Amino acid sequence: MRTETGSVPASSALGAKFHRTRALSEALVRPLSDADATLQSMDDASPAKWHLAHTTWFFETFVLRDHLPGYALFDARWPFLFNSYYEAEGLRHARPRRGMLSRPALDEILAWRAHVDAALADALPDLPPAAQALALLGCNHEEQHQELLLTDILHHFSVNPLEPAVWQGAPKVPVAMPGPIGWIAGLEGLVAVGIAPTERPDAGFSFDCEGPRHQALLAPHAIADRTVTNGEWAGFIADGGYRDSRHWLSDGWAWVQKEGVEAPLYWRREGEGWTRFGLDGRRPVDPAAPVTHVSFFEADAYASWAGARLPTEFEWEAAAAAHDPAGGNQLDAAGPVEPRPAAGGPAFFGDVWEWTGSAYRPYPGFRPAAGAVGEYNGKFMSGQFVLRGSSCATPRGHSRASYRNFFYPHQRWQFTGVRLAKDL
Amino acid sequence: MRTETGSVPASSALGAKFHRTRALSEALVRPLSDADATLQSMDDASPAKWHLAHTTWFFETFVLRDHLPGYALFDARWPFLFNSYYEAEGLRHARPRRGMLSRPALDEILAWRAHVDAALADALPDLPPAAQALALLGCNHEEQHQELLLTDILHHFSVNPLEPAVWQGAPKVPVAMPGPIGWIAGLEGLVAVGIAPTERPDAGFSFDCEGPRHQALLAPHAIADRTVTNGEWAGFIADGGYRDSRHWLSDGWAWVQKEGVEAPLYWRREGEGWTRFGLDGRRPVDPAAPVTHVSFFEADAYASWAGARLPTEFEWEAAAAAHDPAGGNQLDAAGPVEPRPAAGGPAFFGDVWEWTGSAYRPYPGFRPAAGAVGEYNGKFMSGQFVLRGSSCATPRGHSRASYRNFFYPHQRWQFTGVRLAKDL
Amino acid sequence: MRTETGSVPASSALGAKFHRTRALSEALVRPLSDADATLQSMDDASPAKWHLAHTTWFFETFVLRDHLPGYALFDARWPFLFNSYYEAEGLRHARPRRGMLSRPALDEILAWRAHVDAALADALPDLPPAAQALALLGCNHEEQHQELLLTDILHHFSVNPLEPAVWQGAPKVPVAMPGPIGWIAGLEGLVAVGIAPTERPDAGFSFDCEGPRHQALLAPHAIADRTVTNGEWAGFIADGGYRDSRHWLSDGWAWVQKEGVEAPLYWRREGEGWTRFGLDGRRPVDPAAPVTHVSFFEADAYASWAGARLPTEFEWEAAAAAHDPAGGNQLDAAGPVEPRPAAGGPAFFGDVWEWTGSAYRPYPGFRPAAGAVGEYNGKFMSGQFVLRGSSCATPRGHSRASYRNFFYPHQRWQFTGVRLAKDL
Amino acid sequence: MRTETGSVPASSALGAKFHRTRALSEALVRPLSDADATLQSMDDASPAKWHLAHTTWFFETFVLRDHLPGYALFDARWPFLFNSYYEAEGLRHARPRRGMLSRPALDEILAWRAHVDAALADALPDLPPAAQALALLGCNHEEQHQELLLTDILHHFSVNPLEPAVWQGAPKVPVAMPGPIGWIAGLEGLVAVGIAPTERPDAGFSFDCEGPRHQALLAPHAIADRTVTNGEWAGFIADGGYRDSRHWLSDGWAWVQKEGVEAPLYWRREGEGWTRFGLDGRRPVDPAAPVTHVSFFEADAYASWAGARLPTEFEWEAAAAAHDPAGGNQLDAAGPVEPRPAAGGPAFFGDVWEWTGSAYRPYPGFRPAAGAVGEYNGKFMSGQFVLRGSSCATPRGHSRASYRNFFYPHQRWQFTGVRLAKDL
Repeated sequence: MRTETGSVPASSALGAKFHRTRALSEALVRPLSDADATLQSMDDASPAKWHLAHTTWFFETFVLRDHLPGYALFDARWPFLFNSYYEAEGLRHARPRRGMLSRPALDEILAWRAHVDAALADALPDLPPAAQALALLGCNHEEQHQELLLTDILHHFSVNPLEPAVWQGAPKVPVAMPGPIGWIAGLEGLVAVGIAPTERPDAGFSFDCEGPRHQALLAPHAIADRTVTNGEWAGFIADGGYRDSRHWLSDGWAWVQKEGVEAPLYWRREGEGWTRFGLDGRRPVDPAAPVTHVSFFEADAYASWAGARLPTEFEWEAAAAAHDPAGGNQLDAAGPVEPRPAAGGPAFFGDVWEWTGSAYRPYPGFRPAAGAVGEYNGKFMSGQFVLRGSSCATPRGHSRASYRNFFYPHQRWQFTGVRLAKDL
Repeated sequence: MRTETGSVPASSALGAKFHRTRALSEALVRPLSDADATLQSMDDASPAKWHLAHTTWFFETFVLRDHLPGYALFDARWPFLFNSYYEAEGLRHARPRRGMLSRPALDEILAWRAHVDAALADALPDLPPAAQALALLGCNHEEQHQELLLTDILHHFSVNPLEPAVWQGAPKVPVAMPGPIGWIAGLEGLVAVGIAPTERPDAGFSFDCEGPRHQALLAPHAIADRTVTNGEWAGFIADGGYRDSRHWLSDGWAWVQKEGVEAPLYWRREGEGWTRFGLDGRRPVDPAAPVTHVSFFEADAYASWAGARLPTEFEWEAAAAAHDPAGGNQLDAAGPVEPRPAAGGPAFFGDVWEWTGSAYRPYPGFRPAAGAVGEYNGKFMSGQFVLRGSSCATPRGHSRASYRNFFYPHQRWQFTGVRLAKDL
Repeated sequence: MRTETGSVPASSALGAKFHRTRALSEALVRPLSDADATLQSMDDASPAKWHLAHTTWFFETFVLRDHLPGYALFDARWPFLFNSYYEAEGLRHARPRRGMLSRPALDEILAWRAHVDAALADALPDLPPAAQALALLGCNHEEQHQELLLTDILHHFSVNPLEPAVWQGAPKVPVAMPGPIGWIAGLEGLVAVGIAPTERPDAGFSFDCEGPRHQALLAPHAIADRTVTNGEWAGFIADGGYRDSRHWLSDGWAWVQKEGVEAPLYWRREGEGWTRFGLDGRRPVDPAAPVTHVSFFEADAYASWAGARLPTEFEWEAAAAAHDPAGGNQLDAAGPVEPRPAAGGPAFFGDVWEWTGSAYRPYPGFRPAAGAVGEYNGKFMSGQFVLRGSSCATPRGHSRASYRNFFYPHQRWQFTGVRLAKDL
Repeated sequence: MRTETGSVPASSALGAKFHRTRALSEALVRPLSDADATLQSMDDASPAKWHLAHTTWFFETFVLRDHLPGYALFDARWPFLFNSYYEAEGLRHARPRRGMLSRPALDEILAWRAHVDAALADALPDLPPAAQALALLGCNHEEQHQELLLTDILHHFSVNPLEPAVWQGAPKVPVAMPGPIGWIAGLEGLVAVGIAPTERPDAGFSFDCEGPRHQALLAPHAIADRTVTNGEWAGFIADGGYRDSRHWLSDGWAWVQKEGVEAPLYWRREGEGWTRFGLDGRRPVDPAAPVTHVSFFEADAYASWAGARLPTEFEWEAAAAAHDPAGGNQLDAAGPVEPRPAAGGPAFFGDVWEWTGSAYRPYPGFRPAAGAVGEYNGKFMSGQFVLRGSSCATPRGHSRASYRNFFYPHQRWQFTGVRLAKDL
C-alpha cells in the first residue's frame, strides 16, 4: 500500500466508507467455517481469516497505534502474525505458513475487528488529516483484500476433491452469443494519463503508482470493444494453441511445458465440452461469458494466435476514460460472483481484469511515500505486468481509469481476462 | 495394516474393545476446534480430522463393505479422501494435500463415526471370524492412529508462533535426578524372539511383522536399565556433540548440516537453559525426564559419544520379555501426555519409544497377508529402523515385547528416545 | 537471432566480415584446452566448444542447408546437439546437459568450422540476397556469442578453486581516481529512437528488436557523464547497502536474502580490501574502474541509495546518439579483457553494459521475422530489462546507439554496470 | 576406506601390488581424452581424472605425508580438490562440482601420479609396518575406484546423445540360453561368517566392516545356482512388473513412479526388442547374459514377482565360501567390460554384484579404526543394502566371500544384478 494521493473526504463520508467496507468483508466470510477460513492452498494465496486480520492490523497499526495516544494493542502477539510484507514493521510470520494459524479462531478475529472498529469510529472525527488519510488508505487496502479473499477461497476450495461451493449459483438464463469483436479506433499522439490529485482536488482517492499525471505518446491503433469470450478461447484450444510454440513467449512456453497447462485455470474437459470451477461450484463453461483465469502468457499467446496484440496500459486508459468505472459486473455484496455474458455496448470495467502489454514500472517522476506505507507499490515494480479495469470480484467504486493492478505473467488465480488491440 | 496373527477374542470382548477404542479417539480431539483438526504442518503428519476419518474408513471398507451384505457407504466420495496408502484400494487424495480438507467438517466426520459405530456394533455378533479378525485389526490400527494424532497435533501447533497448548500441564512435582545408568547383563546365545500366534493361542493380537517366532543369536552384551535423560542430553550438546562429525553417521551428519539441527525437536535455548514445546505448551526442559523427539541419527551419535551403542531389537526384546507391557507411563485417557521422570526400577515400556540399531526388515519366513490389508507392514521394510517399547502417547495395552515400531532415521516428531547398550 | 533489418554489404565486404568474425572466435579459445572448452558451470552459461559449434550450426543450417543446393551436413547428428532454442528446428539437447559433450572434441569442432567456412566462402558470391542477409545475421550472431563465450568461461573458471586465468593481465598503471559524476542535461520532449533500415539504407546491420524507428517522449532529466566506479560501490557496501531493505525492489531483496549476496559477483573480501576474479585471475579491485558484474537489482538499489535512478533506454539512446559506438574499451583481439579506469570525457560505449530502467518489450509496430530466425528476439520480451552500450567483451563494431541487450534482473555474469540518471 | 585388518604382505609383494594397481588405473583411462576425463554427469559419479587424483591423494596423504619425514606435497592446493569425504582431513571441494576441474589437466594428474609412485616405491622398503598397512589399504582403495571409474564413465557417456563407446565390443558369439535356475540347499543353523585376520594370519587383506568373524544363524533355505538373466527380466517387464504396485516396497514404488522407471538403466526399447548402452556403446540386449544395472528396489520386486526372495548376506557368504573369489568374469585389463552369458557350473563371483536382502549394518563387536581412515566404512551404515560377490568391473583378486559392497536401494549405475533365494 502506499500513501493516498487524493484528497480526504469529510470525516462523516469517511466514516460511512469505513463502516461499509468493514461490513462487506464480514459478509463475504459468512458462508465460511473457521476451518474454511484457515485454509492456505498455495504461497500466493492467504487464508480468509488472515485477510480479515491483516486489514484490521493495518488500521490498528498505522492509524490507532500511531495516531491515537494511549491506544493499547488488542493482542501484542498478533502483529507478528498479520503483517504482510512491511519490512519496516519488523519480522513477520512466514508467508507459506499462514495456513497453520488455526488460532486465533475466526471468532477471535471478528472480536478484534469489532474492537478496532469501535475504537476507530470513536476516534475518527478528531484524528488529524494525516491519520484520516491513512484510514482512507486502509479502506482502499481492505477493498483490495476483499477481492483477494474471494479469489483465494476459490483456489483453496479448488484443491478439495469435493469442490465445495461458497454460494449457490444464480439460475442460468440463455443469452445470445456476442457478435464479432468490433474495433474502436484509439487516440493517437500525446494524451494525458495517470492521476495527479493536487491538480484535481475532486479526484478522490488514488494509489501512488497511478501518478504523476503525465503525457504519453500513442501510436495509431485500434482496441477491441469487448473482451475475449470462453467460446473464442475454446477455439484457440481446439486449434492447438497450447501446443504450438510459435505463439508463445519463451518464458511462457517453458511454463506451459513445465506445468502441463492446456486450458484456463479451473477448466476441466468433460466429454465433448468443458466445465469450470467457480465460487458456485463446478458448472459448464458458458461460451458467451468472458474468459477468465488466464495468465499473461496465455493472453499474449492468444493475441498472437488471433493476429493481434495486447493493448498498452495507456491505450487502454485513453479508451476507458469516457466510461463509468462504477459500471458493469462488479462486487456489490456477498453472493454469486462470476463473469457474465456481455450485455449492451462497449464496457471497460467489471467481469475481468484485462492484461495489458505494459510491464509494471514507475511513471516519470514517481516517488514512493515515506515510512512503512511507502512499501505499498513501488517495491513491486519488477517482473510484473499491468492489468487494467476491474472484475466481478472488485468492490464497486474501488477502481478507476488510472488504476494499475499488477501480477506476475504466470499468475492466473485472479479474475483475469483479455482484450485485444492492433496497430493501424 | 495387516492381518492379525493372534486369535480373535469373543465377540463381546471385541465389542468392548471396539467401543473403548472409538471413544478414546473422540476424547482426544475434544479440545480441538474444526480448524485445529484440519491443520497439516508437514507431509509426514496428518490432520486430526483425517485420523478420525481414516480409521473409520478402515472399518467401513474392510469390515462393513466387504462383509455386511447390503451395507451402503455413508458417502461414496469419501473413500478417495481417506484411504491412506492402500494401492489396491485405488486412487487417493495426495498426502501433502490432506490439510486442505476443511470439508467435510469435524462434525460431519463425527456423524460418520457414529453411523459406522452403530452399524458395526449391530453387525459384530454375527460377523464371520474373518470379519471379526478385521475388526480387531481395525481397533489396533486405530490405536496406532491415536498416537499419531497426538504427535501430529503437537507438530501442527508447534509451527503456530502462538504455540497453543492442547491441555494444561500437570503441576510439576520436584523429583530427584536419576542416578547413573546401571547395566543389565543381557542373555547370550540363542533366544526365541517374535511371536507366533498359532503356537500360543492365548497370545492375543499381534501384527504380521512381529512373526514368525524364531531363534536369534545374541552376542555378549549389557543393556542400560533406563533411557537417557534430558539432563544427560544437555551434556552432549554442551560438549559440542552436534558439531563433531566423528560421532555421526554420514547421512546423519548431512542431515544435521542441512537442517541446522542443534538440539532435540521442540527445544529452544532461552537464557542459560532450554525449554521444550509439548502438548501442554512451552515449558522448561525437565532434566530428570527421558529425552524425547530425537532421531535415529541423534540417538546413534549420542551413543557413539557416550562410548556405547544402541541395542539390537532382539537384545531389547530379550531384556523386556519379563516386563509388563501395560506398565509405565502410557496413554489411558485424554490429558497431559509427556514423558515423566523415572520412578522405581528398570522399565521397558512407556514414556518414549526406543531406537534400536536394527534395520526394519522381515523375519525369516515372513509373508505378508493377502489382499489390501497385506499392505500394512511388509512394504515399508526398507530404509527404516526399528523402535521398541511404547511411549506416553501409546494407548495402554497396545504394545508388547515383540512389537516393532519403525521410522526413517531422520524422523523425530514421535516420542522417540534412547536406551544404550554395550558389548561385553 | 532474427532477420537483419539493415542492408547487406557487398559480398566482398561480407566475406571479409565473415572471415574476421570466424577467426576471432578461434583466437578466443586458443588458450583453452579441450576440457576447458567442455565445462558448463551453470544452466545460463554454455561451454566454449558449444559456442564454436552453435555459431557454425547457424551458418550450416540457415545458409548452406537452406540455400546451397546439394550441400551435405558435416555430421547429421550434430544439429540436435548444437541448436540452442529454435523450436521450429526441432528437438535439441537439454541446455543443462551441454557440459556433458566431451565428444565431439574441440578439434572436431574446429574441423567442422573449417569445412563450413570453406563451403560458405565458396558459395557466398553466388548466394541470393536473402541468404547473404542470413550470412550477415550469422556474423552478428557469432559476435554475440563471442561475448558470451568470454563471460561464460569466466564463470566456469570461477568455480574451480584454483581460479585459473585465461590470460596474464596487463601491467597495472596507476591512474588518478575519476572526479565526481557530472550531470548532462538530457533532451526533452519528442525524440526519434530505434532504427529503421529502410529509411536509412546506409545504416548497416541491426536486429529486429531495435526497430521500428519511432518517436519517444522524454521528461526533463539529467544523465551521468560516466558509470559508477568500484570505489563508489565499496562505499555502498560499507554503508550497509546490501542489508537495508529500503533500497531494494521486493524481488531483489528476496534474491539478496536467498543467495546471501553482499558484493558484486567475483568479489571477495580479503583483509581490509576486496579482490575480484577476472579473465586474468584474481586481483585487487581497482577503485577507479567501472563496477561490473552487478545485477539489475543491485543497480536499482545502488541508484536508490544514491538518491538517483537508472536512465530509461530512450534517455540513454538520446544521450549516446552523438558518441562513437566503436570507441572506448571494446574487444579487438584475444587478450586481457576487463573494464578499465576511465580516461577522457563522457563515453557511452565500452567497459560495461549499462542497466536501464526499461523492461524489454516490443516497440510500437514490432513484428518478428518469419521462419525459425524469427525466434531470435521477440520471444524473450517478458521479465527482462534492457541494457545499453557495450562492454570490454563486445567485439568492436558490433554495437550501436540503438542496440538493445537484455537480461533477467538477477543475472550478473555479463560485464554489466551502472550509469545514474535523475529527474529535473 | 578403512584400516586393513589383514596382515601385510612382504614389502616386495606389496611393491608389486602397488605397481600393478597403479598401472591398471592408467590403462583404464587411456582411451579417454582430457575432456572425457573431466565429465561428471551426476552427483553420485566422479570424473575419471578425479579418481586418478583422489587415489593418489590417499597415498600422498596417509602414507607419504604422515610417514615419510620431509616429504613435500606435489601441490599444496590439490588436497582440497581431491579429498572425498574425510571430514577429519578438513574442508573439500563440493562433490557436485568435481566436474568443473578442467585444471589440473589429465597430464598434470598423471605427472602427480608418477611423482607419488616414485616416492612411494623408494620409501616402501623402509616404511614402518603401519605405513605399509596403509599402502596396502591404498591399493585396495584404488581397486575400488577402478570399478567406480568404469561405471562412472559409462554414466557420463550415457548422457551424451552420441553415446560414445570407450572400447570396441568383442565379437558376439552365439551361446545357448541357460537352463532353468537350479536350487542349492543352503547351510542351516550356526555358521561362521565374516573375517578375523588376527586368527587367520594368511587371510590377506580385508576391510574393517567384514569383521569381526562371528556366528550367524541360518534358517532352512535354498539359493539359486545362477543370477537372473536379461531374458528372464524381459519377461518381468512383459508381465507388467514395473506397473504392479503389489511387487514393490513402498519406497521402491514411489521411486518407480517419480523417475518413470520401466526397465534396467541404459535399456531402450527399439522396435520389438531392447538395446542397452555399455562401455562398448549401444547394442542389443543379450538375453543369455546376467541382467545388470538394476536397483535393490527392482531386485526385490523381481524376486517378489518370481515367488522368491533375495538371499541374506550370510546365506550368500555361506554358499560362496567354497568358490574361488578370483574366478569368473572380472577385470584383468583394459578392454571390453560387460557381463557375459554364464558358462559352466554355479559361480558366485564375476559378472554382477548381487543385491542381498541385508541392510548394511555393523557386525557384533565392530569398531571403526582410529584417525581419518576410520571414516572408511562405518559411517555409511545407514540406509544402504549389502551386495556380495564381484562384477565384470571388479579388479580380479579384489573380492572375497566376506566382502561387503553397499549402495542405496535406488542406485543402479554399478554392475548390479540379482540372485534369488527361497525358504525351505
